[in-house]
Formats: sequence, C-alpha cells, structure tokens
Amino acid sequence: MKFCIIGSRGHIGYVFQSIGKVPGITLDGISSGCEDDPAPLLRSSENAGFTPELYSDWRQMLNRLSPDLVAVDGPFEKHAEMAAYALERGIHVFCEKPIALTLPDLDRIMAARKRSGARIISMVGLRYQADFQYALQLVRSGAVGKVKMVRAQKSYRLGTRPEYYRRRETYGGTIPWVGSHAVDWIMAFAGSAFRQVYATQTAEDNFGYGDLEIACQCMFVMKNGVQGQASIDFLRPAAAPSHGDDRVRVAGTEGILEVIDGKVILIDKDGRRELPVPPPERELFSDFANSLTGKCRCAVTESETFELTRACLLARESADTGKVIEF
Amino acid sequence: MKFCIIGSRGHIGYVFQSIGKVPGITLDGISSGCEDDPAPLLRSSENAGFTPELYSDWRQMLNRLSPDLVAVDGPFEKHAEMAAYALERGIHVFCEKPIALTLPDLDRIMAARKRSGARIISMVGLRYQADFQYALQLVRSGAVGKVKMVRAQKSYRLGTRPEYYRRRETYGGTIPWVGSHAVDWIMAFAGSAFRQVYATQTAEDNFGYGDLEIACQCMFVMKNGVQGQASIDFLRPAAAPSHGDDRVRVAGTEGILEVIDGKVILIDKDGRRELPVPPPERELFSDFANSLTGKCRCAVTESETFELTRACLLARESADTGKVIEF
Repeated sequence: MKFCIIGSRGHIGYVFQSIGKVPGITLDGISSGCEDDPAPLLRSSENAGFTPELYSDWRQMLNRLSPDLVAVDGPFEKHAEMAAYALERGIHVFCEKPIALTLPDLDRIMAARKRSGARIISMVGLRYQADFQYALQLVRSGAVGKVKMVRAQKSYRLGTRPEYYRRRETYGGTIPWVGSHAVDWIMAFAGSAFRQVYATQTAEDNFGYGDLEIACQCMFVMKNGVQGQASIDFLRPAAAPSHGDDRVRVAGTEGILEVIDGKVILIDKDGRRELPVPPPERELFSDFANSLTGKCRCAVTESETFELTRACLLARESADTGKVIEF
Repeated sequence: MKFCIIGSRGHIGYVFQSIGKVPGITLDGISSGCEDDPAPLLRSSENAGFTPELYSDWRQMLNRLSPDLVAVDGPFEKHAEMAAYALERGIHVFCEKPIALTLPDLDRIMAARKRSGARIISMVGLRYQADFQYALQLVRSGAVGKVKMVRAQKSYRLGTRPEYYRRRETYGGTIPWVGSHAVDWIMAFAGSAFRQVYATQTAEDNFGYGDLEIACQCMFVMKNGVQGQASIDFLRPAAAPSHGDDRVRVAGTEGILEVIDGKVILIDKDGRRELPVPPPERELFSDFANSLTGKCRCAVTESETFELTRACLLARESADTGKVIEF
C-alpha cells in the first residue's frame, strides 16, 4: 500500500502511532501542503523507518506517486480541497477533522466521493482511546438500557497557538475544531444521526485570540429522541494536570455510565462501581488502512464522518445565527 | 413571631431543620391545605416542641391567627393562590419552589407582593448546602476570575411518587420541579439575570408516570454573557449511593471550580486541588425568618425568587414549543 502525507498541523501523530501495524505500507511522499516547514514531518517519518520523497507541491506528489492512501493534515481551510482532489483520483483519504470548514466544502467532498471508488474518514481518534472505546462497547451491549441523554465535555488548555487560530477563515471555529470529539461521542453513544441543534458561543475574554471562541455549548436532539449536550472550552488552566478534560455521561433507562479522569464509572441495579478499562487492542489509522484491504472493520465510518462534519458546521451556524437548526 | 404552615408535600423539612434558631417564633397553626392527611406535619411540629392548632381550611387559619409568616408547601398548583392570599394580608411567605406553575400565577403573586409590605422567597435550600454555599463564596471572591460558563446537573432517583406527579397541571413539569435548583445555581454562579433560554425534554420511557418528563436539558445565555447549561433527569438508579447527584461546574478566565460528590475542586494557576468544605453556619428558613426582623441577611432574595421562577417557566415553555425564548 503506497501512502503519502500532506501536512502536520493537527493529529498526524495518529498515523505514526500505528503505521507499524499496517502490513506492506510504504510512506512514499510527504508535503507540508503550505508554507509550513516540513522538517518535523520528515523527522517523524524517519523515526518510523521511512524515507519519503519531499514535495513542495502536494498535487504534484499525488499525481506522480499515485498513492493508495493519503493523510490530509494541511491548513484547516484546505482539508476539503485536498480531500476532494485525492478522492477524484481514487486515493483513499485519512483526513483531519473537521474535513470541511464550510457546508459547500463538505458538499464538494461528498460529490467527489460519489464519483470515486475511494473512501474517506476523519481523524476522530478519541473514539479509539481506551476509556471511550470500552464505554461505547458497554453502552452498545446494553449497560445503561435505552439511552436517553448523552453529555460530553471538551475542556482544553489554550496555551500558545499559531496565528491561523485567530481567524475564522483559517481556524473554522471552536465548535468544529475542539467540539467535534464531543459531537462524535454524542452521535456514537446515542446510536443515531442528528435531528436538531441549538448552540451558543463567545469570543469575549479570549486572551487576544481574535475570532477564536473561548467557550461554547451545544444542545442536540437525535433522530431517535436521545438528548445530547456538549460543553466546549479553552478555559483549562495551564497548571491543570493534563491538556484536556474529556468526559462523557450517558444516562439510560437502566443505568448511568460516565467516562471521567480516564475512568469508566457505571451505576446500575448493582450500585456504583468503577470498571477496569482494558488496554486498547486497536488504533484508528491502522484500522482504517487495514479496512481498505478488507483485513478488518474500522470503528469510524464514512457516513459518520459526513454526519459529524455536518453536525459541527450546523451547530456553529446555530451559534452564529441564534437559530435552532433542523437537520 | 407568629408562624403557620400550609402543607408538607415538598421541602417543609427546611423549616424544622432550623426553626430552633429563630428567637421568639411560635408555630400557631397548621393545615395540610388539601385532602392530604395532616398527621405527619402534626408529628413534625410536636417533635420540634410546638402544639399548633390544626385547621382543615387554610384560609380560615390565616384569617383567625393572622401570623407574621407562613410556609406554603401545599399542592404544587396551589402555591401561587396560597402565597398571593397571604401576601395580600401582609403575611410573609416561605414558599416551596416553584412558587407558581404558570406565568399568570407568577404575575398574580408579583401583583400581590406589590400591594403588600410582606416578603416572599422560595425554598431553594440547596443554596445553603455546605458545598454549594462554599463554592459560591469562592466564585464570588474571584477564585475562577471572570465566569464564562456554568454547568449544573440534577439527577434524581424516580422512586415511587404520588399520583399528582403524573399530570402537568398538578406537577408543573420536571424543569421547574427538579431543575429549579440547577437554574438557581446558574443564576447565582453567573451573578446575573437571564437573557435567553432553549430547552428540550422528553416523557418517553418514563416508567408509566404520565406527563412526567424523565430527562430534560436547558441552555441559557445570561444578561452578562455567561453561558449556562442544565442537565436534569430522573434516571438515577435505585441502587445508586444517594438520592441525587447534584453538580456544578464553573469555568472562568482564571480557573475552573466544581462541586461534585459533595466535594469542591478547584483548578487554577496553582494546579488542581480539593478544598475542604467548612461546615455551614447558616440555614435557609432561620435566615429568612430572622431577616424579617432585621437580625440578618438571607442568601435567597425576593428578586431572585421571581427571576428563578420565570426562568424555569420559560425554559419549560421553550421545551414545550421548541422555540428559543428571550427574557
């Protein structure tokens, strides 16, 4: 399997975490996809045992090398252009989320996908994190009965971020960028597509970060009636014990399950207890790459990738316009 | 101070918790205010050292005894009628929340209050619970900087409830009944009145409880821009370690403070730590009763009582109609 990488602005680390578990893969070309220095990407590639060709022009790379698979992690506002370009050439795409910063860009990818035999998923790698993976397995096997509510939290340190986080056009907004994980968990734990969203956000008191929304909240109703809530912020203090405080709470007719501080806690007819989290057996990138050759199934699907991206963009639109939006 | 009680359907326990701290108070009359058996109320009164007269007609009781203060805890749908009747006679009112189940009923109380020298507050006693009281004190003294988000949770066991919980007309709905505490915390921690609300709710899978909403969620924006979120449910399993799982999370520009499992946890520039909660020095009923004679200030005010009731009723209206509502 011939493989290329464009860019390393986001979660390209997922690739290097599990590229060793993809039999026969070769990393043939890399490009930063923009003016970014490609040196860090080159180092990561070499550390993983590859010596890819370096391209300044990502289109040229795809056309010359004709890879089977490309990871897209360039400028956020170019995800859609890069993904559509690859799909149109029959190249599978492992794409940083959100895969598009606007609805027309999402439509562009979906149109390209329709004409292509290639597939695309987004890098919602937290689905594969041990605690969330296990929690989802429990909920799907009925641990809380019929799910009624899902509440998700993403709280990040702001830290120091590159210039492109300051402008909506190049950043996309905090609901799509940070919130996509929370929205993905709501979709996964509810086991349903979205029916409706209302959201609010604020860029006030954002420590001089331009358009960047410092705090957001979303409320969903799913097609199956489950109510979903997301709380998203960059207010986690620098001195906090970790970068992010990721949480999910799933309440159903027979129990309540939570992921908090890396722990999975269940309350059901047998009372409250912490369930030991088994080590994760699988990883996102290797699962996707191996699924392309029929070797396994991937926990993140194409239809979820499209549904999630649309949900994030509509939630942002709701917050921008103050309107309840039906899907 | 002459004192009477009407009913014991809700939190009349607050009265007996601290009536001993009100110098000179006498409990002169009680009435169940409806067909309820007054025996439990009579027993509580006797246990507290009082021998009140028992009335079947609460109006007659108020007119004959002319108390200074009455606690209203009769049928939920009669709070407003009873409170307005008392205020019109210059009797102060300690009223179960929500003080009204409809906006016209709230207006009726506010009109009676305008013509009266007497005051009314609602029994949002959780404000006085040690952990929340301390957390509020910390936030008001700047522990998290400028508050940006408040998230509150009320999760209760459903248990077995009287018939009047099954009908909207006699119950009022889960957002006002259970949610009022969460909405009160949002108001208190945000330090602001409400600007806007959107809410959802469901009565599906409610274990045969008629109209009773089993799960609800509310999203507020406050007048000062703070974003507030409430999650309210009756899904806490019977085998859970306590009746309720009350929580608040307050995120600000300089820290994040949480009340969870009775603990107060702060993350700020000095890292994450649990703060020991001092024992509560004051209680709601005695504070209110003593404030009437100028002996102290009460942490729950009249304007907050009205604002909170309106917020709960508008949140319910939003969930009923699917519309965003401006205050």
